[in-house]
Amino acid sequence: MKITDVRVTPVAFRDPPVLNASGVHVAYALRAIIEVETDTGHVGLGETYGDLPILQNLEKVRAALVGLSPFDLNGLRRAVRTHIKTDLSQGFANLNPGTHAAKAGTNVFGAYEVAFLDAQAQIVGVPLVELLGGRCRDEVAYSAYLFFKQEKHLDDPYPADDWGPILTAEQLVGSARRMVRDYGFKSIKLKAGALDPDYEAECILALREAFPGYPLRIDPNANWRLETGRRIAARLKGVLEYYEDPVPGLAQMAQLHRETGVKMATNMVVTSMDEFRENVQLNGAQVILSDHHFWGGLLATRQLAQMCETFGYELSMHSNSHLGISLMAMTHVAASIPNLHFACDTHYPWKTEDLVEGGPVPFVDGCVRLTDAPGLGVKLDRAKLVELHRQYLDCGMRVTSEQGAYMRRYDPSFPLEKPRF
Amino acid sequence: MKITDVRVTPVAFRDPPVLNASGVHVAYALRAIIEVETDTGHVGLGETYGDLPILQNLEKVRAALVGLSPFDLNGLRRAVRTHIKTDLSQGFANLNPGTHAAKAGTNVFGAYEVAFLDAQAQIVGVPLVELLGGRCRDEVAYSAYLFFKQEKHLDDPYPADDWGPILTAEQLVGSARRMVRDYGFKSIKLKAGALDPDYEAECILALREAFPGYPLRIDPNANWRLETGRRIAARLKGVLEYYEDPVPGLAQMAQLHRETGVKMATNMVVTSMDEFRENVQLNGAQVILSDHHFWGGLLATRQLAQMCETFGYELSMHSNSHLGISLMAMTHVAASIPNLHFACDTHYPWKTEDLVEGGPVPFVDGCVRLTDAPGLGVKLDRAKLVELHRQYLDCGMRVTSEQGAYMRRYDPSFPLEKPRF
Repeated sequence: MKITDVRVTPVAFRDPPVLNASGVHVAYALRAIIEVETDTGHVGLGETYGDLPILQNLEKVRAALVGLSPFDLNGLRRAVRTHIKTDLSQGFANLNPGTHAAKAGTNVFGAYEVAFLDAQAQIVGVPLVELLGGRCRDEVAYSAYLFFKQEKHLDDPYPADDWGPILTAEQLVGSARRMVRDYGFKSIKLKAGALDPDYEAECILALREAFPGYPLRIDPNANWRLETGRRIAARLKGVLEYYEDPVPGLAQMAQLHRETGVKMATNMVVTSMDEFRENVQLNGAQVILSDHHFWGGLLATRQLAQMCETFGYELSMHSNSHLGISLMAMTHVAASIPNLHFACDTHYPWKTEDLVEGGPVPFVDGCVRLTDAPGLGVKLDRAKLVELHRQYLDCGMRVTSEQGAYMRRYDPSFPLEKPRF
Repeated sequence: MKITDVRVTPVAFRDPPVLNASGVHVAYALRAIIEVETDTGHVGLGETYGDLPILQNLEKVRAALVGLSPFDLNGLRRAVRTHIKTDLSQGFANLNPGTHAAKAGTNVFGAYEVAFLDAQAQIVGVPLVELLGGRCRDEVAYSAYLFFKQEKHLDDPYPADDWGPILTAEQLVGSARRMVRDYGFKSIKLKAGALDPDYEAECILALREAFPGYPLRIDPNANWRLETGRRIAARLKGVLEYYEDPVPGLAQMAQLHRETGVKMATNMVVTSMDEFRENVQLNGAQVILSDHHFWGGLLATRQLAQMCETFGYELSMHSNSHLGISLMAMTHVAASIPNLHFACDTHYPWKTEDLVEGGPVPFVDGCVRLTDAPGLGVKLDRAKLVELHRQYLDCGMRVTSEQGAYMRRYDPSFPLEKPRF
C-alpha cells in the first residue's frame, strides 16, 4: 500500500461579516483541500486553513509523502519535521492558527493526518470513528454559534446574506431562534468581545430568558481586561456553562478563576502540550477546547482527551470557518472520545457553499449523525472544488488576518489594540 | 466485521528459581493466551498474566465481546466497565500486577486490546506497528536482564536449567557474558533487592569492569530503606544509566532524587495515569517504565509516551515473565514510539518453552527485528498450546505470588517484610 499522489487545492468560500474581538470577518474564508491518493484506488480527504503560509508549508511536505504507506503516520511526522521549520520562539498566544509560525509543523501534520486516516479507514472499509477506537455515540452534538454581524460586506462582493444585521439583543435572540429552529441545536455559544461587555452580558441574559434550560457560553477571545472579566463574571455567575477566554493569558485566567469560581474554558492559552503542562501548574482553564487543525490531528485530539481525563479537565471543541470535510473529521473524532463533555462549536451554519458531494452535511436535532460509509463518509464534488478554487484565484485574498483593518473601513475609530474593553 | 469467538487458555511454563525482592520465582510462570476470532477468518492473539483473579475477570468479559467489531475498542472498554469491578481503594503500589484488584479493569482491557489490534492489523494486511502510527525503527533493542538465582527448584519439578547458581559477582558476570554472547544485548539490567545491597553494588561495579561502555541499571524493587538507597546512590553515582525503584513510594523516590541528583526510574509507583499526575507534582521518577499489560494496552502505552514527552520524562519498558506473543506486542509498540529512550526489559531469555510457531522469537544483536508479516507476526503452535495448558492443569499452581513463602523453604529465616535492607 503506497500513496501515489497528494494534491492540495486552495479554495475560498463566502463568509458573512460577523464580528469578533479582532474586527469583522473578511468576505471570504480560505481553506486548503487535501487529497491523498493510494495505489489501492482510495482518496483520503483533509481540510485545513488556506492562508498562504500554511499552503507554502503543505507544499514543502507534499512530494515527500508519495511512496509512504497511508498507515505510516510516523513517516508523515518525519517528513513534516524534515521540511517545516516551526518557530517556537513566537509562542502560541493570540493565535491566528492559519498563519502562526509556532504552529507550522503541527498544523501541516494534522492536515495530512486526517487525509491519511480517511484513506486508512476506506482501505479497511470502516467509518473513520472505528479506527479512532470505535463509537462512544452515533451522533455528535453541536452548539448554535451566535455572532454579532454587520448587515453586509463592503463593496458588495456578492449578494448580501439573509441574516441581516445582528447588533442588538433582539436581533441576536432572533438569530438564535433561527439557528435552533433550522438545526435543532440544544446549546448556545456567543462570540463576544465585539460590543460593550455589559451589553454582551445583557444579550446572554436575554438568551437565558428566551431559551430556558439551554447551556450558554460566552467567548470574548481575551478582549477584556481583568476587571472587566471580573465584573461580567459577577453578572453572569450561575448563568454560564463555561466562561471562554474572557481575559488574556493563563495567569489572568487563573486569577479570575480563583477569584470568581467560574469555570474557565480556552482555545487560546492551552493550544499545545507545552501549554497544557503550564496549565497543570496554573489551573487557568478547567475546560480545554480541542481543535484537530492546530492540535496536530485526530489522534493528538484523542491524546489531549486522555490527558484531560488524567488531570481532571473537561473537554469541548473549537471551530474556525470550515467546510464539510472538517465537520466530518470533527464529528468522527468527537464520536470516539468518551470524555467529551459539551456540544462542539461549529461555524458551519454560517457558510452558504460547500464542496462535499450531496451538499452540506445535515444537522438533525443539533447533531451530526455518523453513517456506515467508510472513512470520513464524504466525497469531493469536483465541480464545486473547481468553482471554489476559481473563487480563491479570483478573490485575490491570500490571508484572512485582516479583520481589524477591514473593521476600520466600517468604523474608522475602531481600535486595534487588545484587550479593548 | 464481527468477532465470532473469544478463547482464553491458561498456560504454565517453566520459570527458573531467580531471586527478587519478594523471594524466589516459583517453578512455573502462568500466562493467559487470548484468541479473538473474526468472521473474516483471522485470529488475533493476546497474552497476559495467568493468575486466577485475572482469568476470572477475562472470563467475565469474554462472551460480551462476541459480535463486536474487532475495531471497536470503545465497545471493548464498555464491556470491561460493565463486567469488571476495579477496586481502586487498594491503590497501586507494591504491585503484583496479575492479581491486583485496582488493576483489574486495566489489565483485562489491555489483554484483549492486543488481540483486537492483532486482528485489525491482520485484516488490514499490515504489521501491527503500522496501525500504531508506523515504524520509528525496524528493530527494538532489549537489555540483558540479570538475576541472582538458586541452582535449582526444590522438589525437582523438572530437570534443572543449565545456568547453575548465580549468587556471587563472578557468577553474575558469567551469566552476563552468556547473555551478551548468545543474544547480543548492548545494555544490562540487574534485578537487585535480593542480596546485601553493598554486595549488589559491588556486582554492578564488577559488571562495569567486565562491560565497559555498557549502560547498567539496578532495580531493587523498593526493597531498600531511604538511607540504603542514599548510600548505594553514592557508590554508584555516574555508573548507572538509571536507578530503578530503589526505595518505596513516590515521596521517598523524590527525596532521593533531590538529594543525590541520580536519575530515578519506576515501574512501581507510576503505574497509572493518576499516579502519573502525582509524579508531575512530586517528580519522584524521571524515567517511566511502560508495560502494556498493566497500563491498559498498546494505545495506552503510546498515550503514556506522549505524556512523558509533554512532561519531560524519559520512557523505558518493563517486563514480567512472558512468552512470545507478549514479546512481539512489546516490540511492535516500542517500534512505534519516537521517544523510547532505552533498551526494553525482557525476561524472555530465561524461558525455555514457548508456544509461538517456529520456536522462540530470535534476538539479533540484542534486538527483535520486525518482519512484514501482518499483525503481531506470530501464530500459535497449537500442539505447544495444548502442552503448556496441560502443564498448567498438572502443576496445580493458580497464582504466582508465593515467592516469599517459597524462599522460606530455601531459607527459613527469610524475612517477608519490606523494605528488607
